[in-house]
Amino acid sequence: MHIEPVPTERRKPTEVAERRGLVIVHTGNGKGKSTAAFGLAIRAHGRGKAVKIFQFMKVPTARFGEHRMFEQIGLPIEGLGDGFSWKSRDLSHSAQLARDGWQKAKAAILGGEWFLVVLDELTYPLRYGWLPLDDVLATLQSRPAQVHVCITGRGAPDELVALADTVTEMRPIKHAYEQGIPAQRGIEY
Amino acid sequence: MHIEPVPTERRKPTEVAERRGLVIVHTGNGKGKSTAAFGLAIRAHGRGKAVKIFQFMKVPTARFGEHRMFEQIGLPIEGLGDGFSWKSRDLSHSAQLARDGWQKAKAAILGGEWFLVVLDELTYPLRYGWLPLDDVLATLQSRPAQVHVCITGRGAPDELVALADTVTEMRPIKHAYEQGIPAQRGIEY
Repeated sequence: MHIEPVPTERRKPTEVAERRGLVIVHTGNGKGKSTAAFGLAIRAHGRGKAVKIFQFMKVPTARFGEHRMFEQIGLPIEGLGDGFSWKSRDLSHSAQLARDGWQKAKAAILGGEWFLVVLDELTYPLRYGWLPLDDVLATLQSRPAQVHVCITGRGAPDELVALADTVTEMRPIKHAYEQGIPAQRGIEY
Repeated sequence: MHIEPVPTERRKPTEVAERRGLVIVHTGNGKGKSTAAFGLAIRAHGRGKAVKIFQFMKVPTARFGEHRMFEQIGLPIEGLGDGFSWKSRDLSHSAQLARDGWQKAKAAILGGEWFLVVLDELTYPLRYGWLPLDDVLATLQSRPAQVHVCITGRGAPDELVALADTVTEMRPIKHAYEQGIPAQRGIEY
């Protein structure tokens, strides 16, 4: 019996690629960027993988529905921000928090202990100029090969999209806000 | 001290609208449609709300990461399908399962006991002609006012988009598949 040998050139890429950590980006102006990251975190956690979520725009004391669940199941989620909004007065404080938070996130990504690190709403401090994009890109590129990173937020920079493996744009087709329906507990937060 | 009265005309619509259940649709060819629904389910569950997930294309015995987590936290998720794929031979069986499953989902939506009912991958049995779109639309329209329904899947019918409150298109910008990286446990399932 003759077995056709699989050429090394064909086999190797698949083998090498199979276990590679991905950079996954959820961007766009629509709903679902963060919730899809949370769903991904739940999936990985359910597979017994170590998952860490950093939230760049949420306060450490945030107690939305997801925080309550993640606490219950032992999935660490850490708010790094000060609840910044367009009405905030002390932007230099917000900027400093983002830089401090990024150092934590960077250490988590480079440490290699986490299967998946979620950087929720990272694009905002990037867009506001609080974090150097170069350092973020260099960190992603030099991370241990098995580490997955999921980044969310509107307006992902082109360089981040270029570096990422999987990028999805959440595009709003219509939104309940437009009909005057305010955010509801358990749905929006 | 003079307190400015809020005009009735301005206040009432908000009050009326505030507690209304939404029809939320995640469609498009990109990633994140189901995971965003799972994130939403986690958020609502974390707020102590009753959430039920029906999966129209997954088998009842599916044990992906999300199933393991939902079981652990007591969030019911029910596979209604037979793992249909384009290679399936017995499509009439798949169609019957979809119709049987829809009756369960319909009862859950109309019963009013659930804060949120997720109909994961509902659009496929709709597109294959296994379920009558009219019945789905009529069920959504006649449901108790406080019930939220989240529907996922590619190619949401125009009539469903028209009826929905919030619709997001998950649009693929790039995907790891294209680089020959296969689906990975803990990330894709």
